Amino acid sequence: MMQPFLAHPFDSDRLHEECGIFGVIGVADAANFVALGLHALQHRGQEAGGIISHDPGTGFNSAHRFGYVRDNFTKQSTMETLPGPLAIGHVRYSTAGTKAAPAIRDVQPFFGEFAMGGCAIAHNGNITNADALRRELIERGSIFQSSSDSECIIHLMARSIQRNIPERMKDALRRIEGAFSVIAMTRTKLIGVRDPLGVRPLVMGRLSDGAYVLASETCALDIVGAELVREIEPGEMVVISKGEVESSRPFGPSTGRFCIFEHVYFSRPDSIIGGRSVYETRRQIGVELAREAPVEADLVCPVPDSGTPAAIGYAHESGIPFGMGIIRNQYVGRTFIEPTEQIRNMGVRLKLNVNRALVKGKRVVLVDDSVVRGTTSRKIKDMILDAGAKEVHFRIASPPTAWPCFYGVDTPERSKLLAANMSTEEMRDWIGVDSLSFVSLDGLYRAAGEAQGRNNSRPQYCDACFSGDYPVAPFDQLQRGFHMKPGSETASATDHAAE
Amino acid sequence: MMQPFLAHPFDSDRLHEECGIFGVIGVADAANFVALGLHALQHRGQEAGGIISHDPGTGFNSAHRFGYVRDNFTKQSTMETLPGPLAIGHVRYSTAGTKAAPAIRDVQPFFGEFAMGGCAIAHNGNITNADALRRELIERGSIFQSSSDSECIIHLMARSIQRNIPERMKDALRRIEGAFSVIAMTRTKLIGVRDPLGVRPLVMGRLSDGAYVLASETCALDIVGAELVREIEPGEMVVISKGEVESSRPFGPSTGRFCIFEHVYFSRPDSIIGGRSVYETRRQIGVELAREAPVEADLVCPVPDSGTPAAIGYAHESGIPFGMGIIRNQYVGRTFIEPTEQIRNMGVRLKLNVNRALVKGKRVVLVDDSVVRGTTSRKIKDMILDAGAKEVHFRIASPPTAWPCFYGVDTPERSKLLAANMSTEEMRDWIGVDSLSFVSLDGLYRAAGEAQGRNNSRPQYCDACFSGDYPVAPFDQLQRGFHMKPGSETASATDHAAE
Amino acid sequence: MMQPFLAHPFDSDRLHEECGIFGVIGVADAANFVALGLHALQHRGQEAGGIISHDPGTGFNSAHRFGYVRDNFTKQSTMETLPGPLAIGHVRYSTAGTKAAPAIRDVQPFFGEFAMGGCAIAHNGNITNADALRRELIERGSIFQSSSDSECIIHLMARSIQRNIPERMKDALRRIEGAFSVIAMTRTKLIGVRDPLGVRPLVMGRLSDGAYVLASETCALDIVGAELVREIEPGEMVVISKGEVESSRPFGPSTGRFCIFEHVYFSRPDSIIGGRSVYETRRQIGVELAREAPVEADLVCPVPDSGTPAAIGYAHESGIPFGMGIIRNQYVGRTFIEPTEQIRNMGVRLKLNVNRALVKGKRVVLVDDSVVRGTTSRKIKDMILDAGAKEVHFRIASPPTAWPCFYGVDTPERSKLLAANMSTEEMRDWIGVDSLSFVSLDGLYRAAGEAQGRNNSRPQYCDACFSGDYPVAPFDQLQRGFHMKPGSETASATDHAAE
Amino acid sequence: MMQPFLAHPFDSDRLHEECGIFGVIGVADAANFVALGLHALQHRGQEAGGIISHDPGTGFNSAHRFGYVRDNFTKQSTMETLPGPLAIGHVRYSTAGTKAAPAIRDVQPFFGEFAMGGCAIAHNGNITNADALRRELIERGSIFQSSSDSECIIHLMARSIQRNIPERMKDALRRIEGAFSVIAMTRTKLIGVRDPLGVRPLVMGRLSDGAYVLASETCALDIVGAELVREIEPGEMVVISKGEVESSRPFGPSTGRFCIFEHVYFSRPDSIIGGRSVYETRRQIGVELAREAPVEADLVCPVPDSGTPAAIGYAHESGIPFGMGIIRNQYVGRTFIEPTEQIRNMGVRLKLNVNRALVKGKRVVLVDDSVVRGTTSRKIKDMILDAGAKEVHFRIASPPTAWPCFYGVDTPERSKLLAANMSTEEMRDWIGVDSLSFVSLDGLYRAAGEAQGRNNSRPQYCDACFSGDYPVAPFDQLQRGFHMKPGSETASATDHAAE
Repeated sequence: MMQPFLAHPFDSDRLHEECGIFGVIGVADAANFVALGLHALQHRGQEAGGIISHDPGTGFNSAHRFGYVRDNFTKQSTMETLPGPLAIGHVRYSTAGTKAAPAIRDVQPFFGEFAMGGCAIAHNGNITNADALRRELIERGSIFQSSSDSECIIHLMARSIQRNIPERMKDALRRIEGAFSVIAMTRTKLIGVRDPLGVRPLVMGRLSDGAYVLASETCALDIVGAELVREIEPGEMVVISKGEVESSRPFGPSTGRFCIFEHVYFSRPDSIIGGRSVYETRRQIGVELAREAPVEADLVCPVPDSGTPAAIGYAHESGIPFGMGIIRNQYVGRTFIEPTEQIRNMGVRLKLNVNRALVKGKRVVLVDDSVVRGTTSRKIKDMILDAGAKEVHFRIASPPTAWPCFYGVDTPERSKLLAANMSTEEMRDWIGVDSLSFVSLDGLYRAAGEAQGRNNSRPQYCDACFSGDYPVAPFDQLQRGFHMKPGSETASATDHAAE
Repeated sequence: MMQPFLAHPFDSDRLHEECGIFGVIGVADAANFVALGLHALQHRGQEAGGIISHDPGTGFNSAHRFGYVRDNFTKQSTMETLPGPLAIGHVRYSTAGTKAAPAIRDVQPFFGEFAMGGCAIAHNGNITNADALRRELIERGSIFQSSSDSECIIHLMARSIQRNIPERMKDALRRIEGAFSVIAMTRTKLIGVRDPLGVRPLVMGRLSDGAYVLASETCALDIVGAELVREIEPGEMVVISKGEVESSRPFGPSTGRFCIFEHVYFSRPDSIIGGRSVYETRRQIGVELAREAPVEADLVCPVPDSGTPAAIGYAHESGIPFGMGIIRNQYVGRTFIEPTEQIRNMGVRLKLNVNRALVKGKRVVLVDDSVVRGTTSRKIKDMILDAGAKEVHFRIASPPTAWPCFYGVDTPERSKLLAANMSTEEMRDWIGVDSLSFVSLDGLYRAAGEAQGRNNSRPQYCDACFSGDYPVAPFDQLQRGFHMKPGSETASATDHAAE
Repeated sequence: MMQPFLAHPFDSDRLHEECGIFGVIGVADAANFVALGLHALQHRGQEAGGIISHDPGTGFNSAHRFGYVRDNFTKQSTMETLPGPLAIGHVRYSTAGTKAAPAIRDVQPFFGEFAMGGCAIAHNGNITNADALRRELIERGSIFQSSSDSECIIHLMARSIQRNIPERMKDALRRIEGAFSVIAMTRTKLIGVRDPLGVRPLVMGRLSDGAYVLASETCALDIVGAELVREIEPGEMVVISKGEVESSRPFGPSTGRFCIFEHVYFSRPDSIIGGRSVYETRRQIGVELAREAPVEADLVCPVPDSGTPAAIGYAHESGIPFGMGIIRNQYVGRTFIEPTEQIRNMGVRLKLNVNRALVKGKRVVLVDDSVVRGTTSRKIKDMILDAGAKEVHFRIASPPTAWPCFYGVDTPERSKLLAANMSTEEMRDWIGVDSLSFVSLDGLYRAAGEAQGRNNSRPQYCDACFSGDYPVAPFDQLQRGFHMKPGSETASATDHAAE
Repeated sequence: MMQPFLAHPFDSDRLHEECGIFGVIGVADAANFVALGLHALQHRGQEAGGIISHDPGTGFNSAHRFGYVRDNFTKQSTMETLPGPLAIGHVRYSTAGTKAAPAIRDVQPFFGEFAMGGCAIAHNGNITNADALRRELIERGSIFQSSSDSECIIHLMARSIQRNIPERMKDALRRIEGAFSVIAMTRTKLIGVRDPLGVRPLVMGRLSDGAYVLASETCALDIVGAELVREIEPGEMVVISKGEVESSRPFGPSTGRFCIFEHVYFSRPDSIIGGRSVYETRRQIGVELAREAPVEADLVCPVPDSGTPAAIGYAHESGIPFGMGIIRNQYVGRTFIEPTEQIRNMGVRLKLNVNRALVKGKRVVLVDDSVVRGTTSRKIKDMILDAGAKEVHFRIASPPTAWPCFYGVDTPERSKLLAANMSTEEMRDWIGVDSLSFVSLDGLYRAAGEAQGRNNSRPQYCDACFSGDYPVAPFDQLQRGFHMKPGSETASATDHAAE
């Protein structure tokens, strides 16, 4: 099965966010808002989506489907089955690692009926001690319905001895290690929580009529016309009910380490993260790159669409003209199903065509967001040279990706990451370009607004995929034999494990 | 039913090409090549597509489907039903005018069994005397299966007294008025023809192994790896068989008047028309616009994606920074089917979001390709101002669209064209922007490579949509009461009608 | 692909009617009546069906679908697309002979737009000179859309020089040889015609409100609550309009020779043919068989369901108890699609199970309607013996089927008909039963109400499949090398061919 | 939604078995056998079906689908996903009582992962204390996924403190009240259990190669070619592994009270129950009826197909001729989806037609299996009289149905049962027939092989639907206010409830 064409034409050679979440309370037909919000978050997960709503008359209702939000959650006939003023939803990326075909019962939100009423949850992130928790829960008599790590949360809640759902959720989340942003709902409450490090994003917005929204990114507030109130803070839980927002801190005081890759690739450029425009960060990465790695050339050309803001920055800073040297086919929005050999082999050409007239005879600076396996960088280079470019200079808007992510991002295993196995010069040689430069880690931090660059003693972001510095020990992975970078400490994880 | 998001976010407010055609001879599994070629031409028609192939063993085989090429013509199981070394295909845009739901029997290529064997044809263009021809053919006993004007061609061929298929085709096309590029096939021949004015495009390519390709645009040669040989000339017919290309001129000598709107919007930017890069023409329109209509501003922002090349040209010529002030949602590639009221009302937000952080407080030059009804220009202006822009200056990369096209392009009737009813200043006021400028007709011709601009006594292009100067009289339309511009002559049409 | 379970469990080893037709005029929502009528005629064709209706507002509308009437023509959403007071329909059996997959454009009714308006036709029967007609029509410039012989009729009508549609239809049908019952409609008229021999059935009914119905069988009148008026006579055309029925005889005087196999197997037992109950004829065949071929036995057991009436007659006449020794599975109403090897091999057991407790130790008379290839007779015998029956005596409710039908019935070629190659004793031996008897041709005629049996000089029925006596020469088949029974004359065919 | 046509044409006015179960161990591709077995048991449940298989390589695999077995579980592509030598399956009837649309997660078999490995179960019957058990389990932290009472079993097993799965199942079933036949599987074992009274059926068969089968009825052994070993006894559990069958009696000694309605209607006539042919029992009921309620008449006619054996018996005993006076349409095997008003109103005619020629002028004995609401008895009487019958005498092959079943059969509430509200004479009058007789309870017992009739002090069967004598107290129903027949005792239930 070929991969769909997402933000990047060779999306199968990118890192992937594994989900987007959205919830709303206090509006008529809340599920319609959730559908719109999930549509705006579709870049965070394309495999499947689900919505659960609550209506005083019919109780909890749900729909879980494979495919795009626009295909599943826009029809009148579907949306009528999801009535009520309170609803949450989830879009999901298919993780590469699972052997089996995707199953509808792995699609969130998950639901559990407790003695005090029902609860639905949608989880973005990854539980690093999920295997151990699952074993323990099964031994106690819980029956798992999915292969998802997120299902642990609902079983932990079912077994909690607390008397109301928000307290049961705190109880459960204190057993969880890893990264999580969670949106949950009861019959009357909308709940949002972020893990103590705030690795995954979560924002709160207000609709004009006083109703509230929780969402992974601000672009999902824009689509429903909600005003950004603020981000949920690392380690914070909010419970929204009857127009009131209650905040608490179930995990004690903590300092955030937000995922810096959200700035590089995951988030939409029109989202605001930590008060900063993602588009502007990306454009500024291009500026940093132009300063760190200048080159004499005739054209700055992005790998569309994710490389565009950095290419604009690079062109502006360097004074080299910006041009669309690669044109994408607008109609590759979906997977080709069981294609013929011949069509499968066309791979690249199905998605892109080089603008030969523009590129021919030129020295081209090609700006891309990241290098993962590197195979697609080679193919793009080939296309540009075939079209008659004189030189190709690759400029990458992120540092070398050398470590897997265990916090809700789908990464190849370490041995398949090009930067884990080669120096930059070896990579340049292997890809076959005239020059290759990555933005520095400090340059990236500066572009993200940290004027002094990375604070190495207390890093402002989670940058484990670049640095190997994991803020939470990946418990299950260590059990399976993963080796961390020598000398790395992850005190916070140990603390959690001690519980 | 909402419109899909094509090259322009408000594609329903654009003019539309009504089809793309592709044919190949001399390769194993020709239908695979046709599928790829049609995929590259998908922007010329998204409603439906069809492929007919011929195999010595099983004869002619066909498949006609609604929807995208990638969804219908990539599966092994479908392509296996289309064997053989010779195949042609067609993608079709749904014309707005028809009252009825689209019918599969209107999907081309059409096929007819004649006494000397079968023939399939794919037609891009419009027959301006189709109503009259249909009446005549029915009176003689022909039974029409479709509502398509193109079906006349195959019935005229069936009734021709000529002894072979190419001669029957010449016979038939001499009765046809209007614009047409046709690709046809017999059991052993691939045929291409363009009308005497060459209004619609048609190019010939060669595959490395000596096999030949005919296609609407060069981007479809690129995808199959074919080398551009040349354009089929206005009034030329080519018959390709056993590796030989025979050329003839069934309509006598003629001078071409190619459709200039192909440069403005229809063709893909990576195609080459008349030896000229479409991307470069569009970029150059931006340069012309910056010269003809300069303005003091802080940001040049395209309406994505069709406005991007002209915006790059405008920014480069004016020195004002270029930026992506409007971000499109990548997942709006298809129509929303029977959406809820609420989702339908979201219209714009489903497709676009303004990059608020970039636009806020700025004087913005917004570059768009054309203005048809003008309603979407207003919506985009609203979005930009809501996001806090200080001024909005619209720059349009084509002259005012004031006349309908009758040559294979779907246009609203004249009364609905904004420029048919208002002066530029009235339009500026109605749209509500600080300034509004269209590139001049001469500026457009210059950008398209005519250094002296338009030759008003013998115009180099068909520009009827801008000028009202129709090179072929629209016979059926005149019968229905259409009034041409006072004083316009269309000698060639009269000649044809006399036959 | 396995065959569905129809009236007989091994329906793939039966002869098949190729279609059922139905039309109605003068009621609101005529298409609903057609759907019901076709549902009642579903046993005459299960592959596909179509309905065309006419409404003064929207003109002619049509729907053609593969599959059962109940699945396609009952939904509100479909039926709403078929408005108006006049409609005709057709159900179709898939003929075994065609190499290609079934195509929707072969599904009737067919439609043609003539200068004086549209016309739709539904044809039951077979045109024995269709190949020759098709060649002639193509040479004159007609373009065929289907592979159906019935399409000739509409092209002949399109070319007729008559001024109204009923006259054009007469003109066309005079060129046709073979068997045909046709229901047609214009904007205002419902038309019914039977060929001069009246081989295929056609009846007229009246609805309580004065509206009229035409149908293949009376069971289709019952379902819509219509009262039987009379059969359309051999060689008669009726034109129904504004509540009036006009009758004419376009082919001159003629004597009917109705298909006797309709009594044996094709028609439903609750239909009335020629004033006679089909059930009663079948029961009476059992009586004749008991007289012609008595046997000492303990149980008379039908092969369900088609053998049941004759088994009841045999049991009653012989005094041997009647019992359901074979039980069919109610849920085999459809084909198994791409089954696994193992499931395909289960063949018989998927459809039937022997009632072991009843059959064990008994001498069983097994009554079946006919023997075609004979393979299934062997399988049924095996099942009965495996269940412990002591003796098996086959009694067949028709004479040996030794000749193919060319009048609208799907028959294997002659070499595959068991009775064309073996004597009755050879068949008994090959099938492996204790005794085997077929009803005599005279016995069959007596059961059908002809007290004197068959009039060999002027046979009352078409019985070509038993006798080899073809009332119309099969022109196309003779061209392809079919050999008729030595000495057979078919004067009527020669007359037609002379036209 | 209209009801499908099952064994009885007005199946919506019958009592319904709620499921059929099947399991096999020791064969290649066990799931294929399960598909065949479920196809043979389709009359026990048509709404949905599921199969779970185990393969040492891929573990447990499952498929659950709405619709018929033949449509879902025959395709190669589906069956390939269910590999392995061990599999169980379930077909399910949709219970009328649930408000919500059917959900795929209510489709069995259910699966649970325990600490010692996975277990799948398929349940036929009804748990009469399910509500109470569910409340208790939720309070302890179990999360229910379905609305099915059967899910309690798997949660009880998950919480059992026993160390292996068969012991956990015994533990769980001792908490269950009501009727149950269960087939379960672990990775290596096939398990079958019947409740102490053996209300629902379960048989064991052996395949020729030593592999074993468990099934609801013997007709499912026939289809896979298995030989009947014996019935699982009331209160017995068998565990089959490595070719060995271990039997135990987890509930202590017990005497069976098998459901007598299985003989009347639920089971297929070709099944053997308790060593007795169901067909023969039904035929014998007809004999008893002819003795108990003779009448002067001309024709004995069954309501097809379920009334046929009793009608044959009645005709034989009375000497009145047997005939098919009602003909069913073979093509009503499925529901009509969203039909038009007109088609819905046709109700009866879509399914049946009266054989007018046979019935006209006759005194008809109409034999039907049971009377539930009685509405359809009236409709059938109307049809027969409309066709010209002189008299109609209804003979019913079961006693009056006056009490609901709580043991796995879908019955209307008591107030809707005709016999709960009227005497036989009142029913005769209301239905509008010349005479009406039900077989007596003793006559039914005699026909079922109990020569002395019912033993009123220790009834041999469960006949609660006729007698109101419930062998297990319906705990949940009593909580909801159901009133049992005054003076009834249900000692066994009390014992269970005491646990």
